[in-house]
Amino acid sequence: MISNNSKFSLVQVRGAWTRQTEQQRPAEGKLSEAKIYESESEHGVSWTVVSPVVFTYRVIQCQNLLDPSNDTLLWGHLGNEEPTGAMSNFTPVKRFVVIDEAVNQLYGSQVAQYFEAREVVHKILPLPTTEENKCLELVTKILEDIHEFGLDRRSEPIIAIGGGVCLDVVGLAASLYRRRTPYIRVPTTLLSYVDASVGAKTGVNFAGGKNKLGSYVPPVATFLDRSFFQTLPRRQISNGMAEMLKMALMKHRSLFELLEAEGRKLLHSKLQSCSEQDDSAAASTRIAIETMLEELAPNLWEDDLDRLVDFGHLISPELEMTVLPALLHGEAVTIDMSFMVYVAQQRGLLTADEKHRIVRCMLALELPVWHQDCTLALVQKSLSERLRHSAGSLRMPLPTGLGCAEIFHDMIEDSILCQVYQKWTDELGNK
Amino acid sequence: MISNNSKFSLVQVRGAWTRQTEQQRPAEGKLSEAKIYESESEHGVSWTVVSPVVFTYRVIQCQNLLDPSNDTLLWGHLGNEEPTGAMSNFTPVKRFVVIDEAVNQLYGSQVAQYFEAREVVHKILPLPTTEENKCLELVTKILEDIHEFGLDRRSEPIIAIGGGVCLDVVGLAASLYRRRTPYIRVPTTLLSYVDASVGAKTGVNFAGGKNKLGSYVPPVATFLDRSFFQTLPRRQISNGMAEMLKMALMKHRSLFELLEAEGRKLLHSKLQSCSEQDDSAAASTRIAIETMLEELAPNLWEDDLDRLVDFGHLISPELEMTVLPALLHGEAVTIDMSFMVYVAQQRGLLTADEKHRIVRCMLALELPVWHQDCTLALVQKSLSERLRHSAGSLRMPLPTGLGCAEIFHDMIEDSILCQVYQKWTDELGNK
Repeated sequence: MISNNSKFSLVQVRGAWTRQTEQQRPAEGKLSEAKIYESESEHGVSWTVVSPVVFTYRVIQCQNLLDPSNDTLLWGHLGNEEPTGAMSNFTPVKRFVVIDEAVNQLYGSQVAQYFEAREVVHKILPLPTTEENKCLELVTKILEDIHEFGLDRRSEPIIAIGGGVCLDVVGLAASLYRRRTPYIRVPTTLLSYVDASVGAKTGVNFAGGKNKLGSYVPPVATFLDRSFFQTLPRRQISNGMAEMLKMALMKHRSLFELLEAEGRKLLHSKLQSCSEQDDSAAASTRIAIETMLEELAPNLWEDDLDRLVDFGHLISPELEMTVLPALLHGEAVTIDMSFMVYVAQQRGLLTADEKHRIVRCMLALELPVWHQDCTLALVQKSLSERLRHSAGSLRMPLPTGLGCAEIFHDMIEDSILCQVYQKWTDELGNK
Repeated sequence: MISNNSKFSLVQVRGAWTRQTEQQRPAEGKLSEAKIYESESEHGVSWTVVSPVVFTYRVIQCQNLLDPSNDTLLWGHLGNEEPTGAMSNFTPVKRFVVIDEAVNQLYGSQVAQYFEAREVVHKILPLPTTEENKCLELVTKILEDIHEFGLDRRSEPIIAIGGGVCLDVVGLAASLYRRRTPYIRVPTTLLSYVDASVGAKTGVNFAGGKNKLGSYVPPVATFLDRSFFQTLPRRQISNGMAEMLKMALMKHRSLFELLEAEGRKLLHSKLQSCSEQDDSAAASTRIAIETMLEELAPNLWEDDLDRLVDFGHLISPELEMTVLPALLHGEAVTIDMSFMVYVAQQRGLLTADEKHRIVRCMLALELPVWHQDCTLALVQKSLSERLRHSAGSLRMPLPTGLGCAEIFHDMIEDSILCQVYQKWTDELGNK
């Protein structure tokens, strides 16, 4: 028997999907983007299913999110749609909220007042969402409480209010509950505002490894309100600016120049808007988010392993888990970026002057550029782990100037790595 | 300020993704299917990301899957692709296998011999994958062992060999590990062959609810080998034929007629091929799989709630969990279908003769058509749960003849439900 290949489209006629070859006259009905390829041989039949799933999510900048007169927290995820159908007419609106314990101390009563004022049946669950607690047990705790509270799987999104750990853990719980329950992210730290909020990743640490378990399910919406930063410690502002600097170095020279010129002022003002004329806080966070969205939207499930946003994330996961809780995420990322800037200069991708400007900018943002526990052995181990999990190629993003970058696939020779490490330690070891 | 809306495409130029409006001249580079919509008003900026993720998976019918000369188990997921890149040249091939304990008793040594003969570094983990054990703890156990064994996240798929519970639990573990590790399904029961194997769903039970946690991540491949059925108890064959009957009733009259005419013979032969001239076993399983793929491929993440494959799955989850382990999945599904056939007849969708033919076919397949614990209260509770989780509409698939169906959205009036229930019990209560 000769092998026989067919390609089928799918058309929905009176509720049932039917296969249709290209030669057949198209049936009246809804056409799917999915395709089925069938191949028949003497050994049997095989089918290949190609099915696109469309993910849609909103990222919304707003002010006064917790003001009861502001609809956003309750209905912002719907955009211009009406609250869904029959349900909303005769059953009360319900919301389940997970909030970081520390954030709850500061904003918990405002959150409760918001829902009370709007007569929303709600449960607020405060949790210690620290990096050390970022584990499957915390996800299970959330799931148990969600299950007990009872939610409509389609129309009652779970709300997460807190930093990146809180958003990641709640995202994972929501993506698991009934195989996908919508959730909303409200970042309260600068780091999660410009980073975790924008993408699809959820996760927890596992067996000593950072974010070893998780999913790629975006929130239905993210609500961004910079006023939360007013209560952040200064170190947390620096922490977040590290990820903004990452995007600047990879693809936006003007953002780098803005951080270079205004970084300290932004740090000092905690990114609150000073005046309508000079709103470098709004401008810089907007660029950071737009550049992130550009990189994440075409690659939501990371099918393409070449990712500029991985800059600063090759050595830092290992470093962060090793010294936990000594370094914040953005700090570990900056140490990684600082080392990689030395690699880039060694390769002739950056001039000495560009390297100095970058390191000076990091220091002005009060970020660490070197760490004693970031040893040569740790760097080597991290890079070989990376090699092992990136389909046999290092895929190392490196700056090739200020605000532009390329991805390099070859492993760094060990002697070169030693040499760069030595120079990095000599020049920055005492900063 | 007037609200200002823009739609952006995304183009990758020298490694970096950039936004581009429709008015702009297209930049040279890779164009993404993703879009970003930006809307600016006096309150701030909002972005809507629309990002399609393409899932591709193979379903392959084959013979002699465990014969060491057969490449399928090791490389079948790649189709015509070569094993990936550099890795395969200098590192040994590795595979992590989870196998159901009972299946391991029967086929474990063949599986081990397969990998030994092909010099594959492997670990075989036998687990008691019963419905009662289908929980998050089993997923954690698998994850711990995978982590200890060490896998290349891209090129070393996890293999699950067993029934539906095994495939669901391993699928969930794989979809969580590093946010998505490829996995392969090898169904050893008829039920999982025609049902769990074909779709994207993974899951575990939680808080007394069936499959309350899970994900929609398809395997990279499913390998179908009917020879496993030879060692199945007769009741397990009936169990699987229930899901075949479901597809027949919903959308394939010839499959119904085939099951009606040949069902007992198929049951008796355990769906092994009798002769080349009369291969109703191959024909019926093929139709069951093709009809399932037709319904699942266009709706992989169940964004459309109107699903014909939900027939038999409105009352059965509650019933199955209530009487566990008295009823197998396909048995509970048949009781549900039997009740729904009575609903359909009451509505004038089926004639009395059609109803009798369906019930007679169920009985010939040695499936239960009624159960004492399927009380009126349980039916009522199940339907209101369904209503609550289907965006305010019942979405009840009902046969409208033999091999055709429609989805009905209105709730059944309580008096009608009582009446149908009474008739169903009167006629089938003693079968």
